[in-house]
Amino acid sequence: MSAIHESGSAGLAAFAAELRPEQVPEPVWRRAEELLLDWFGSALAGKGARPVASVADFAAAMGPADGAAELLISRRRSSPLFAAMINAAASHVAEQDDVHNGAVFHPGAVVFPAALAAAQALRRSGAELLLAAIAGYEAGIRAGECLGRSHYRVFHTTGTVGGIAAAVATGRLLRLDARQMNHAIGTAGTQAAGLWEFLRTAADSKPLHAAHASASGLAAAYLARDGFRGAERILEGTQGMAAGMSRDADLSRLTDQLGQRWALLETSFKYHASCRHTHPAADALLQLMGQHGLSAREIVRVNAKVHVAALEVLGAVARPTTVHQAKFSMGTVLGLIACHGAAGIAEFERALDDTAVADFAARVAMEADAEVEAAYPRRWIGKVEVLTRDGRRLESRVEQPKGDPGNTLSRAELEAKAMRLAAFGGAAGPEEMRLALARLWDMRGAAVVGRLLPGERE
Amino acid sequence: MSAIHESGSAGLAAFAAELRPEQVPEPVWRRAEELLLDWFGSALAGKGARPVASVADFAAAMGPADGAAELLISRRRSSPLFAAMINAAASHVAEQDDVHNGAVFHPGAVVFPAALAAAQALRRSGAELLLAAIAGYEAGIRAGECLGRSHYRVFHTTGTVGGIAAAVATGRLLRLDARQMNHAIGTAGTQAAGLWEFLRTAADSKPLHAAHASASGLAAAYLARDGFRGAERILEGTQGMAAGMSRDADLSRLTDQLGQRWALLETSFKYHASCRHTHPAADALLQLMGQHGLSAREIVRVNAKVHVAALEVLGAVARPTTVHQAKFSMGTVLGLIACHGAAGIAEFERALDDTAVADFAARVAMEADAEVEAAYPRRWIGKVEVLTRDGRRLESRVEQPKGDPGNTLSRAELEAKAMRLAAFGGAAGPEEMRLALARLWDMRGAAVVGRLLPGERE
Repeated sequence: MSAIHESGSAGLAAFAAELRPEQVPEPVWRRAEELLLDWFGSALAGKGARPVASVADFAAAMGPADGAAELLISRRRSSPLFAAMINAAASHVAEQDDVHNGAVFHPGAVVFPAALAAAQALRRSGAELLLAAIAGYEAGIRAGECLGRSHYRVFHTTGTVGGIAAAVATGRLLRLDARQMNHAIGTAGTQAAGLWEFLRTAADSKPLHAAHASASGLAAAYLARDGFRGAERILEGTQGMAAGMSRDADLSRLTDQLGQRWALLETSFKYHASCRHTHPAADALLQLMGQHGLSAREIVRVNAKVHVAALEVLGAVARPTTVHQAKFSMGTVLGLIACHGAAGIAEFERALDDTAVADFAARVAMEADAEVEAAYPRRWIGKVEVLTRDGRRLESRVEQPKGDPGNTLSRAELEAKAMRLAAFGGAAGPEEMRLALARLWDMRGAAVVGRLLPGERE
Repeated sequence: MSAIHESGSAGLAAFAAELRPEQVPEPVWRRAEELLLDWFGSALAGKGARPVASVADFAAAMGPADGAAELLISRRRSSPLFAAMINAAASHVAEQDDVHNGAVFHPGAVVFPAALAAAQALRRSGAELLLAAIAGYEAGIRAGECLGRSHYRVFHTTGTVGGIAAAVATGRLLRLDARQMNHAIGTAGTQAAGLWEFLRTAADSKPLHAAHASASGLAAAYLARDGFRGAERILEGTQGMAAGMSRDADLSRLTDQLGQRWALLETSFKYHASCRHTHPAADALLQLMGQHGLSAREIVRVNAKVHVAALEVLGAVARPTTVHQAKFSMGTVLGLIACHGAAGIAEFERALDDTAVADFAARVAMEADAEVEAAYPRRWIGKVEVLTRDGRRLESRVEQPKGDPGNTLSRAELEAKAMRLAAFGGAAGPEEMRLALARLWDMRGAAVVGRLLPGERE
């Protein structure tokens, strides 16, 4: 592929525009199917969430009442712009959507909403939808890696590079050429936004960041098809994203081993329904309690040994006041693990009123660990130190949290997770889900991407 | 006002939400009327511009075909979201919209599109529209001043703080209380975006930045009315805008003399149809040629002595290839002034094919000037040095470019400018304009904000 030899935004655009189905290895196709199905479950989990309902109500007031794209939580339809917006918000609120460790980026929540909406509106095939998503993952993850850790310290990467990932996926479905694709990337990048400040006061911005990224990325691709020109070096230019939004950008990462290294395969599924930064410690604690047969009341102290970014993100939450904020509280997450053996979407709904969980949370501390920090962000090692009531000091360690590529979820586990998420907000019944999951597993052979769920009047 | 005693985003929000009509001095009301009328002309000037047409076509494909808000360039209607988007793009493309020197921010292009759309949809009075705009100007300008010069070096301030200004104006019309207003500011700020990188390759992003700011700001206010919570310290928080997007932020500027110093009165009208950074030198050259009775061919060299930000913005344009880029070329602007005595919207349309202008442009250089730099951004002094064919070295200086508050345009000049802008793209005929301008001058007394121009079928 000629794309490999170009650098910067143009190189990324050329790769994304010119990628052919036969160049994609079989395991990448299969993982893409799994990521799509996992995203679908996450989107259904957003039904009933107040911030998502606000976004959906705003969209209903401002957008058309019908259209070619499916709104998963309401069973209605609208234009692709609003479908991308609502489905993205819905899929990023329950903290169950996928994550790429190295980029600290949630690709599914921004790529699939735009790609599904565009594919439905343009009547593309299932294989074309999957290939568009693959291109979106590869581009977005590399953009996130390029902007580095200083970016993530202040900016919510899913909001910022998410627009580029959504633009690339949509651009594939619009069949943009390499030059148009770079204009789409430029137009998405100049709308890149999302700040972590919201987390301090339990504000509702996180799903909005995904919505903004997916919708503005989709818009960028449609505009590029119409001849609208974007900056040609939006990531690496002297007044571009790296210059303005990062202090440790590594521009070589933008086109790192394109077509050889598949970043999509490095993407993790979430098992616990909390911020990914809590998962390594949660798994280590679960393992330790199992190995030693401990109950929550036998534990007087937990030290979660974490990477620095975990302190930066989770440190903002002193005492959670909302369910969403609780998902960013290490104490609450470990409290749920210790008291209930699980930190799933249903457990979180009851976490704030659970005094046993709150008591346990008060016994949890976080500290930076040199080894964990050195491995981050490529590997997210989990380490906890536990002091027991009878005076034992125990340690536990997991190399990869559950859901990471080396410790992945099986297709059966992914289905079970999606069923739980659909049931949680009542977004779809078991029979509807059975049909939808079958449709998703068969996506690669679908001549046209149709609805995933029946409409509201069917 | 209690608002004056609070600081940060909350203080700004309280001032904006609690401002009462009787607290606004008469000259502020009058200038607001003038800024509204001047903005209206700028919006009409966008008719026919390709990037604006792309945005409008995208909106037509994705948005409703009718609604409560007016699309000035097409005479159609849509929902407030798309009216804000299209009218903002239209009003920021011809480089004729107003600018606040100290903040280097174009408030009109983001505030009025959102305010007009919301006022029409909510059937508010003309006075309420003007007061909403006043609040939007005061808040947005202070946010821009707060983020400082390092922000403007990479970020297009109109895109970034523009969302906050639009959110405040819309929030007034939605009658948000102080707390809701701060949520609106938080939600707008976390979507703040816009990078100067586009200018290097004559990309189309500038009007899109205004569109994005106005539309996302409007959305932020509607969401806040619905209970959607934003970050409470989006400007000053440790993971907020100042932390992520500025290196010289001055947080005290955010609430600087609220209710006493009226930043709206410091806003300049644009006379030339080019980037404001070219205006001081253009006026100085025009004055010098008049005083000495020089023609273009008698001038062999012009040194424009500018502030550093002018070099940073205009330096990106080596040789313009589009009309819009020509407006950022000091050589082209001074060439038009020298050859045609004016750099208006009509002159620019012919600038690229004009060899006399290109020849003159090649004789123009820019250099930083210590005195001009020291006064910037509060004062934009114009200085040029001219070498004549007969060997004279002449100098000229203007303290304030035409359109600045101390050298403002009269109401008659503003009307004439609006008539020219309407005629330029054929957006409205003379009789339609006469009626529209009368309606605009009477806005403060209007019981309900209606259409400014007749609909397409009327």
